[in-house]
Amino acid sequence: MKLAVLGVGLIGGSIGLAARRRAGATVCGYDPDPRACAAALELGAIDEQASDIAAAVVGAQVVFAAAPVGVLAAIVREALEHAGDDCVLSDVGSTKLALEEARRDPRFVGGHPLAGSHTAGVEHAREDIFDGATWYLCPADTVTAGLYERLHDLIVSFGAEPIAVGADMHDRLMATVSQLPHVLANVLVEQLAAVSRDADQPASPSTVGVGPSFRDATRVAGSNTAIWTDIYLANREALIETIEQALLGLEGVRAMLTRADAGALAAWNERARAARTQLLGGDTPPADAAP
Amino acid sequence: MKLAVLGVGLIGGSIGLAARRRAGATVCGYDPDPRACAAALELGAIDEQASDIAAAVVGAQVVFAAAPVGVLAAIVREALEHAGDDCVLSDVGSTKLALEEARRDPRFVGGHPLAGSHTAGVEHAREDIFDGATWYLCPADTVTAGLYERLHDLIVSFGAEPIAVGADMHDRLMATVSQLPHVLANVLVEQLAAVSRDADQPASPSTVGVGPSFRDATRVAGSNTAIWTDIYLANREALIETIEQALLGLEGVRAMLTRADAGALAAWNERARAARTQLLGGDTPPADAAP
Repeated sequence: MKLAVLGVGLIGGSIGLAARRRAGATVCGYDPDPRACAAALELGAIDEQASDIAAAVVGAQVVFAAAPVGVLAAIVREALEHAGDDCVLSDVGSTKLALEEARRDPRFVGGHPLAGSHTAGVEHAREDIFDGATWYLCPADTVTAGLYERLHDLIVSFGAEPIAVGADMHDRLMATVSQLPHVLANVLVEQLAAVSRDADQPASPSTVGVGPSFRDATRVAGSNTAIWTDIYLANREALIETIEQALLGLEGVRAMLTRADAGALAAWNERARAARTQLLGGDTPPADAAP
Repeated sequence: MKLAVLGVGLIGGSIGLAARRRAGATVCGYDPDPRACAAALELGAIDEQASDIAAAVVGAQVVFAAAPVGVLAAIVREALEHAGDDCVLSDVGSTKLALEEARRDPRFVGGHPLAGSHTAGVEHAREDIFDGATWYLCPADTVTAGLYERLHDLIVSFGAEPIAVGADMHDRLMATVSQLPHVLANVLVEQLAAVSRDADQPASPSTVGVGPSFRDATRVAGSNTAIWTDIYLANREALIETIEQALLGLEGVRAMLTRADAGALAAWNERARAARTQLLGGDTPPADAAP
């Protein structure tokens, strides 16, 4: 099997390693940064490097676009132009509705492995990075069945667990489990900063006495600005909807507090407890110190 | 020095231990549950038990009310009736504006140690539980200076770090650093539950692929319902204000997304990063896997 990897970073490099060692594939890599390709060759993540996308894609049975979300659409478009009919193309971007044009092509299946981190380069690529990881696949109705199977089976051979989900559902899910927690983390630290400005003394780790719930909820506040601005904008439609749901949820809590409705607050908290157990498993959440 | 501790649980028992062993005080305990007093006696957290609040308070130079927030006001009122003029009374409740009547008495100083957990009993009391812990004190303007000093110095002898702050500021601070993260945790898990209901398959830990940001942000979802319903209601005014600030913050993010304003999103994220570093120290937040 011949594979092409477009964008040889942590994820692209790890795909190359897993494909060569676990699926016996030959991997051709392309990256606008020649140093990334050189490092990937030395690491054994690719067999050869191509000078451009067209050269990488010609003759490939599987193509992965593993570039930052901002440039994915252009790369996938070019790859689809040069790929043959018996080739399945996928990407690893964090939003799946964005590649609207590609999703009309029967050779394309959007994908999103929940593994690694965009902050690291190909030098951190590992063959086993996908072991046990969820790998979302978002096939459109028009996809060629045999091509989808090929991609699915390849991902299984990487050690990942493919889950098929609609592109819209994927984007709502990501907005809910990843982007909204980042947004709320930023909102929380900004609020504490505002309280501290109004206080007699400026807030600091020693004067605020921040408990574990705040610390946990704000761990990702101010994450890498370039990456997260891209992600927020790439998934902005689903994220706007998700924020609107959060506004409704908060307004509901405010209404229960305004009515001093102990019964409704208790029922709401019990629903949250049940949802948490179902979604995240049964470990009991710790209360804040001296709540 | 003679101390009275009204409510002998984890915090009351730890106050007794610290006062006896670190301040050489004699401690009289009262608890409506006779088993708590018996356990406290056996542990050495109190020297003697009183049959009621009046008996515990008479002759004491310092009184701590360490009962659940729902009954604190009544206990403090009764203690103030029976305490002498040369006695300082404090509590350990999580909201400080609530004891409005007590705050007009020159012998009362609201307090709130950030230590322990309300879920555990006197059997987990420890002499060193306050070591290095922030202990908020909220003296009203009318407080007798010598009495405030006595309480302050005693708390220092416990190993805690007293911080004087206005009662309103304390309640805003707690609403921001503790209650709002709990509210948001509940809102987040309910939203994911709603997305999962709309999806083809129900969400579960294995199908959702929940990343660390969601897991961290929802660790306290559905915390002990009885305790947290009490806390939400005891601090409802400050919490309602704090939720309104969060609504404004989220609406601001929605507006930036609606305008697709990359510059504003980046500047907002940088402000959050700076606030996080100032408030929580400089450790770099980890990004979600494959954002």
